[in-house]
Amino acid sequence: MTEQGPAAGRGPGTGRDTGSGRVRLRLLAEGRPPREVSVPPGVSVFEAASWNGVAIDSTCGGHGTCRKCRIRVTARGADDGNGVSATGEAGDPGDLGEAGDPDGAGCPVPVSRLDPRAFGPEQLREGWRLACLARAVSDLEVEIPPLATRPKAATVGVGRQVILRPAVQKRYVELAEPTLTDQTPDLERLLAALDDLEPVPDLHAVRAAGKVMRAADFKVTAVVVDDVLIDVEPGDTSGSRYGVAFDLGTTTVVATLLDLSSGTPVAVRSMLNLQQPSGADVISRISATMLDPSALDRLRDAARETMDQLAREVCEEGGVSPGHVYEVALAGNATMVQLALGIDPEPLGVAPFVMATRALPALLASDLGLRLHPRARAVVLPALGAYVGGDIVAGVLASGMDRDRRLRLFIDVGTNCEIVLGPFEGRAGRLLATAAPAGPAFEGAQIRCGMRASAGAIETVRLTPSVELGVIGDVAPAGLCGSGLVDAVAELLRVGLLDRSGRFVPEAQAVRLAPELAGRLTTVGGERVFTLAGDVFLSQRDVRELQFAKAAIATGWRLLLAEYGAAESEIQQVLLAGSFGSYLSPASAVRVGLVPDLALPRIVSAGNVAGEGAKLALLSVQERAGALALLEEIHYVELSDRPDFNDRFVDLLAF
Amino acid sequence: MTEQGPAAGRGPGTGRDTGSGRVRLRLLAEGRPPREVSVPPGVSVFEAASWNGVAIDSTCGGHGTCRKCRIRVTARGADDGNGVSATGEAGDPGDLGEAGDPDGAGCPVPVSRLDPRAFGPEQLREGWRLACLARAVSDLEVEIPPLATRPKAATVGVGRQVILRPAVQKRYVELAEPTLTDQTPDLERLLAALDDLEPVPDLHAVRAAGKVMRAADFKVTAVVVDDVLIDVEPGDTSGSRYGVAFDLGTTTVVATLLDLSSGTPVAVRSMLNLQQPSGADVISRISATMLDPSALDRLRDAARETMDQLAREVCEEGGVSPGHVYEVALAGNATMVQLALGIDPEPLGVAPFVMATRALPALLASDLGLRLHPRARAVVLPALGAYVGGDIVAGVLASGMDRDRRLRLFIDVGTNCEIVLGPFEGRAGRLLATAAPAGPAFEGAQIRCGMRASAGAIETVRLTPSVELGVIGDVAPAGLCGSGLVDAVAELLRVGLLDRSGRFVPEAQAVRLAPELAGRLTTVGGERVFTLAGDVFLSQRDVRELQFAKAAIATGWRLLLAEYGAAESEIQQVLLAGSFGSYLSPASAVRVGLVPDLALPRIVSAGNVAGEGAKLALLSVQERAGALALLEEIHYVELSDRPDFNDRFVDLLAF
Repeated sequence: MTEQGPAAGRGPGTGRDTGSGRVRLRLLAEGRPPREVSVPPGVSVFEAASWNGVAIDSTCGGHGTCRKCRIRVTARGADDGNGVSATGEAGDPGDLGEAGDPDGAGCPVPVSRLDPRAFGPEQLREGWRLACLARAVSDLEVEIPPLATRPKAATVGVGRQVILRPAVQKRYVELAEPTLTDQTPDLERLLAALDDLEPVPDLHAVRAAGKVMRAADFKVTAVVVDDVLIDVEPGDTSGSRYGVAFDLGTTTVVATLLDLSSGTPVAVRSMLNLQQPSGADVISRISATMLDPSALDRLRDAARETMDQLAREVCEEGGVSPGHVYEVALAGNATMVQLALGIDPEPLGVAPFVMATRALPALLASDLGLRLHPRARAVVLPALGAYVGGDIVAGVLASGMDRDRRLRLFIDVGTNCEIVLGPFEGRAGRLLATAAPAGPAFEGAQIRCGMRASAGAIETVRLTPSVELGVIGDVAPAGLCGSGLVDAVAELLRVGLLDRSGRFVPEAQAVRLAPELAGRLTTVGGERVFTLAGDVFLSQRDVRELQFAKAAIATGWRLLLAEYGAAESEIQQVLLAGSFGSYLSPASAVRVGLVPDLALPRIVSAGNVAGEGAKLALLSVQERAGALALLEEIHYVELSDRPDFNDRFVDLLAF
Repeated sequence: MTEQGPAAGRGPGTGRDTGSGRVRLRLLAEGRPPREVSVPPGVSVFEAASWNGVAIDSTCGGHGTCRKCRIRVTARGADDGNGVSATGEAGDPGDLGEAGDPDGAGCPVPVSRLDPRAFGPEQLREGWRLACLARAVSDLEVEIPPLATRPKAATVGVGRQVILRPAVQKRYVELAEPTLTDQTPDLERLLAALDDLEPVPDLHAVRAAGKVMRAADFKVTAVVVDDVLIDVEPGDTSGSRYGVAFDLGTTTVVATLLDLSSGTPVAVRSMLNLQQPSGADVISRISATMLDPSALDRLRDAARETMDQLAREVCEEGGVSPGHVYEVALAGNATMVQLALGIDPEPLGVAPFVMATRALPALLASDLGLRLHPRARAVVLPALGAYVGGDIVAGVLASGMDRDRRLRLFIDVGTNCEIVLGPFEGRAGRLLATAAPAGPAFEGAQIRCGMRASAGAIETVRLTPSVELGVIGDVAPAGLCGSGLVDAVAELLRVGLLDRSGRFVPEAQAVRLAPELAGRLTTVGGERVFTLAGDVFLSQRDVRELQFAKAAIATGWRLLLAEYGAAESEIQQVLLAGSFGSYLSPASAVRVGLVPDLALPRIVSAGNVAGEGAKLALLSVQERAGALALLEEIHYVELSDRPDFNDRFVDLLAF
């Protein structure tokens, strides 16, 4: 027992609590080429395989109760004394040392308390384990038996193929009726009939069980969310289980009704956040709560009303009873989440910018004011910090940044712009994140003819050299939205009417460089402007606003690159997230310097990744665990106390 | 690893899932004689020691977080190959076989996932373990280090000395304020400061934390119940933690406010259950819900109003803010519990008499309609069956029947009479329980001059040969309550006016046997009666009613004795429980044959043991676990389908 191979030969980063690296798993599934993946130490083999698209049998979703996720663990590199570490289940590997080998066979994964229910002593010695309880705290080789059933999968997020393992499960059972010789209590009778799940009933289920069982001739469907039995329904309702994913944006809220059996979106609706009258951005809403003691309740209720209205709309559109929605997932920035839950947001709005908690406890949908199944659960995507919220964690999850070796840059452009860079294999924070105060220019605020991206907004601008405008809603141009602003500036730079310092060139120079456009350079109120259409123009100060915004963002991603000593050219993909990101022209974004100067196909609009992350959380408990694991994988870099921030910012103001 | 000693030499009953026996622990505490105790297999060494009054250091209450409950496990009888079984934590010992020895030292308790945080490899090899995670699945010898602190204890129940380990804990902490270089979220800052507890916050605590921390200069008290952080209070409130124990009787409800820091009762109040107008006993209340669909809600609300009123009264009497009551415990029969929770009681009232569940999930006090701390928890004592409820489990707990080798008989006399007999060492059901339908005679119902035990009720009767009556409330006799009924019949038997068949003797014989009393034998409405005082009399039919009641009870305990092949004379103590039991004269109870014919000092009034059991659950999480363990220790014997019941019943009608 004491001749354990030394832990030498592993990198310094495989200890779980150092957070400095990952462990490697070699997954051997019959009939498929071996697959090597790396995951944060401490995650289960089941999660590790799921995250990388490798299916392992399971019907309980990873609670150790179905005993189907059988794998065989082989010590990797055991014969050369390299990489084998015997460690306690989820314990600190270092402390346990050589005392954690439970079966004398050198298996690096100890026998969990449930393994003996699934395997005999001989199998345990051979390294058989339940994958959902086998924690990878050192490098492992894992054999995965052929699948007994083909798992369902869906494509979600940025082209991610996700194995469906929703927390919501249903089981139809036909029970024996009680007799004087079998007085088993109602709930125990029901629970005994669930052969792959061992949920704890909540009071609602306790109240329902006896009545429903008797009314339905003891033919009932158990409704389980995670490890809680939330209801007992008459007859076979197992085909009907739904969830709603919310992207709770500061401006817009999107709800997607998902069929959890198939992973299919049934209905999608969006609307403006009803909190809008209290302010356009998070800071103004936080300020509102600081000025008026009743504002927190009002904002909470507005968020709830928004979500509840959307939930009812998607249910109606999908023809689904709200009582068959058993779980919701919510991705939002920290302020939106705290307001929706009635948590005072003041500490988020003033230095040192502190949030209430990164990960919220298990909640009910009713805690968010939603009128769905009375015991529907709510899962809130965890947040990294006050300005890198659950929406960004959801986005990183949906884009699979951490499961991929390409160096990628994720930018969610907005008033507060969140930036994530990574991964860097073998580094302490494998992903780096920061928030850059871009200001409201992209929302059309502080821009002379600025407006939201709604009917009448100019969203694209091309100078060919005639002025070609794309206008939302096929109406006459009424103003300029964020993507139109970026386009306008980029095009004026290209044709030379703006110089690299951001100044409109003198009239003579304009006439020389772009004779067809020079006539549009004029002045309004003493300020030089470029007329786009009718009375819609771009002013010199508008250009300055954009310069401040893009400099803040570029400073953010450049500081993250510097933190890792990586060059701009090493970035393999830029993901533009959020609704604004979807409309931004990659070419213009490069030209104004908002994003690194990469070949355009490498700059990708990722769409509404926050909403996709919320969907993932509903469709797979492993993905949900992955979101939590991201908190350990992403290191947050605070810009506001960086001494080099201002110097870099000033350097980056020019185009 | 494979030369494990055989499991031979142990009795067949030490496997956990057979339920056929107990495991023995030899507890070695410095400076005290060795102590041998037996407990159900699978309980923790910490619980086993606590139940037997042996203290082990702990501040977290047994959640594996304080790491103070250090013990050293020695394989008992290891050198003779006897009694050592290496088993997985809480697993099925048989399945694991010899594969469960985690450290090569022959220690029968595997290393738990938290042990490596508390001990180094050398200590683990020497058998050091955390007692709260060390499950006793085989016989063990355990060394207990000297205590670092002297644990508080209180005397509760039938003279039980209980170590105080309430689920409600408070910790006062002074936190560092956040800065730009330390943006730790509020809750994580608080949780990190709790060095011996690792609770999960609930939403209420998440909402409170930031506001309270900032308002109180980051000097706050964390309120933890079990493993949940339920609140954050400003300043140091650690001295103020209270609980309310309820004995929810069909007739009377008793509430005791307990100071959980000292175990002291602060105030006690009782009142009639406000459900009374819907029926005197459980069957009539169940019937009410079957006849009227609104009755369940009405009865639920009546129970809640009763408890809430009592809770406010004890808080007021004790000068304690209801917001400082963080937990309640409730002992009641299955019908009372189901009604209070709004669970349809119909299946309890009709064959085959099925309850909703034996053990209820974690509840909030607000689920019981109580207006205390908004997140106060509620623990309901588990029930064995429809007619052996949580009140009886509480009573057995409070009397310590299972922790004692004396053969004892527990009788809770009432309309439904619950009987528990045991323990029998080495038997499958170490304790046997049954319910006997005694009928309402003891409540004064069906008795011509019967009444409740209230002012004017004759509660004692002595024929010396003059008639000496004890009357409740020092007023003129108005009727006969249960204890008076038993006394009257017993005395009439003693003086010979009733014969052994229960018939009043002929007048001539009466004059000869008891000349001073014979004149009181007369007739009312054609029925022979014995006049006790004024117009209060005992009729021939009243005697018959008592005969039916006592025969039902005696049949119950005799069948339990027969089940074990034990004789009446082997019983070492009879515990008369419930409020009626407190007033019953042991001599009269023996004379009428209600209890076995033992020397009178062996027949003990145990008082309100249900309420005492509820107190125990509040004062010690180990006692609460003990109540759950009782469900496995007590075997329920259903009388209604016993073919020998009627024969025995008829035999026992005579006195």
